[in-house]
Amino acid sequence: MSDSLTIAAPADFHVHLRQGEFAAFLAPYVRKGGFKLAYVMPNLRPPIANTEEALLYRAQLQAADPSIDYLMTLYLSPELTPEEIRKAKRAGVVGVKSYPRGVTTNSDGGIESYEAYYSVFEAMEQEDMVLNLHGEVPSDASTNTCVLNAEPAFLPHLRKLHARFPCLRIVLEHATTRAAVECVKSLGDTVACTITAHHLALTVDDWAGQSWHFCKPVAKYPDDRQALRDVIKEGHPRFFLGSDSAPHPPHTKSTASPLHACAAGVYTSAILLPLVAHLLESFGALDRLEGFVSTYGRAFYRVPASDADKVIIRRVSGKLVDEQLVQGEQSVVPFWAGKEIAWEIGDS
Amino acid sequence: MSDSLTIAAPADFHVHLRQGEFAAFLAPYVRKGGFKLAYVMPNLRPPIANTEEALLYRAQLQAADPSIDYLMTLYLSPELTPEEIRKAKRAGVVGVKSYPRGVTTNSDGGIESYEAYYSVFEAMEQEDMVLNLHGEVPSDASTNTCVLNAEPAFLPHLRKLHARFPCLRIVLEHATTRAAVECVKSLGDTVACTITAHHLALTVDDWAGQSWHFCKPVAKYPDDRQALRDVIKEGHPRFFLGSDSAPHPPHTKSTASPLHACAAGVYTSAILLPLVAHLLESFGALDRLEGFVSTYGRAFYRVPASDADKVIIRRVSGKLVDEQLVQGEQSVVPFWAGKEIAWEIGDS
Repeated sequence: MSDSLTIAAPADFHVHLRQGEFAAFLAPYVRKGGFKLAYVMPNLRPPIANTEEALLYRAQLQAADPSIDYLMTLYLSPELTPEEIRKAKRAGVVGVKSYPRGVTTNSDGGIESYEAYYSVFEAMEQEDMVLNLHGEVPSDASTNTCVLNAEPAFLPHLRKLHARFPCLRIVLEHATTRAAVECVKSLGDTVACTITAHHLALTVDDWAGQSWHFCKPVAKYPDDRQALRDVIKEGHPRFFLGSDSAPHPPHTKSTASPLHACAAGVYTSAILLPLVAHLLESFGALDRLEGFVSTYGRAFYRVPASDADKVIIRRVSGKLVDEQLVQGEQSVVPFWAGKEIAWEIGDS
Repeated sequence: MSDSLTIAAPADFHVHLRQGEFAAFLAPYVRKGGFKLAYVMPNLRPPIANTEEALLYRAQLQAADPSIDYLMTLYLSPELTPEEIRKAKRAGVVGVKSYPRGVTTNSDGGIESYEAYYSVFEAMEQEDMVLNLHGEVPSDASTNTCVLNAEPAFLPHLRKLHARFPCLRIVLEHATTRAAVECVKSLGDTVACTITAHHLALTVDDWAGQSWHFCKPVAKYPDDRQALRDVIKEGHPRFFLGSDSAPHPPHTKSTASPLHACAAGVYTSAILLPLVAHLLESFGALDRLEGFVSTYGRAFYRVPASDADKVIIRRVSGKLVDEQLVQGEQSVVPFWAGKEIAWEIGDS
């Protein structure tokens, strides 16, 4: 077993960096977690709905940590037009994120039907922009739809979009089910899939009664987790890391009140590369680390790695993940808090 | 719609009353919730393992509230012998509760295999005692077993026990799945099933990120909840109320720490009869209230209702469930806290 590994510039193709002071606190942890590329989610309050807002948001993030390459996305909403897509492309915006209405943090303005956006998708296909899908349908007791089967129920939408826009690059984000893995594998090379670190560790048992492990999509059955692990172990190039690292102030994660659910999200950015190495090694896939965290996603997104951005990780023993990260009045609790982790970022 | 209903002496055939000062605090709330019969679970620390302990526990509960009829149970463990069963029967103990190892609160000493207890079950069958089953198998990732399918995976054990001991009265406790309902319906008249109030209200979406709704067994899919509602609406006499009211000190329900899961349990005793009326009315089964909360369970357990113990409930509007019940240093948060409830206990 190696005691250190050199990884081509890691890239996190799905991360929530929040806004304001919380963002200023969080952005530097992306780099501390081993990443200099962050594909930034647009679900702020209000959402990043147009090019101007995306550029302003990027400028704020650059002020917080100028060393990171922020790839920006827009929030799919009626405000988005084919003209705006072309403008966004010229300004360097990379993708558009679709949230079904009401399924996760700040998705109240999410979409209800895709047909209304076909002209936008056509423009995205022409401009070679990426469509990022939060692949869940809203819960509906009358159809037996709940957080457990919301992802499989979404997959027909993915198939339909891919059939209608075969050249549009689509990413099914944070897949959590065997059904999603098999669906993406069955589709063409323009369809990829991100997998988070925490979904490689958790099953439903881990968030039952443990709100710190609660995120959307929720972790599913052990067999679903196995499917995620297997597709990584297989080294499938259309499955790569998108951490969905989703920080929340600690008081919103601890369910002190019986009247309100806690915020959905697991925060992994600050320990991301060591954590992914730790988890991949746990199921015998450490040899796929570079592909999963760097080369596969970079190939799909067409953002080559710079040799200068290689990262070294080294094996460590007895190291525990911090129980909390604090700076002034800002704080966040990382995933794996207080648990032993077998890798750390080395000197580059 | 009636504005008041008179219900034959309600009986809660599955309740956790805890021990010590917490029990002294909680016992009177059984009556305030409309019940004078409590079928008491034995999973204390240490568990109620023999007749002597059961009688001592009953005396403690009687000291806390002498107006309640406490039906006592023993915890199935290697300590239990056919001789002890006969002794327990003579002392008025009604049933024996089986907990698979590790699946819920204080089940560390639970059983791993039933064969070892066949001589005990034979004695119970002879003595006409009731076997109460927590019907879940432990989670096991290698067989894709988790909290979601732990109950269906248990059902073959129920079928096997019933086939081997057809005259033994068995209750599958707190059923949460369509599979369990269908299984019990398919078995003989010696097999019954309790249903809690909270499982008539909750699905998995309600405990996702909301630890106050986390209990074992966890609430399942909307279709499972529908099966519970339907079998009550049908008025099936082998399906009756066992609240599984499981109080915990509030700090153990609020997941302040990322290192520990919260306690499993929902507390309904203090509002039980109004809550059940409210829920049954919500799905058109108010006409089954008396059967579900009284006559069906009493018939199965052979504890007839006394005319003196009828309870009147009356319709109320604008009433909210207390957010917390407090007495000195003891406190508990009821289910439905802060929400409107359409019925209350009337003057008898």
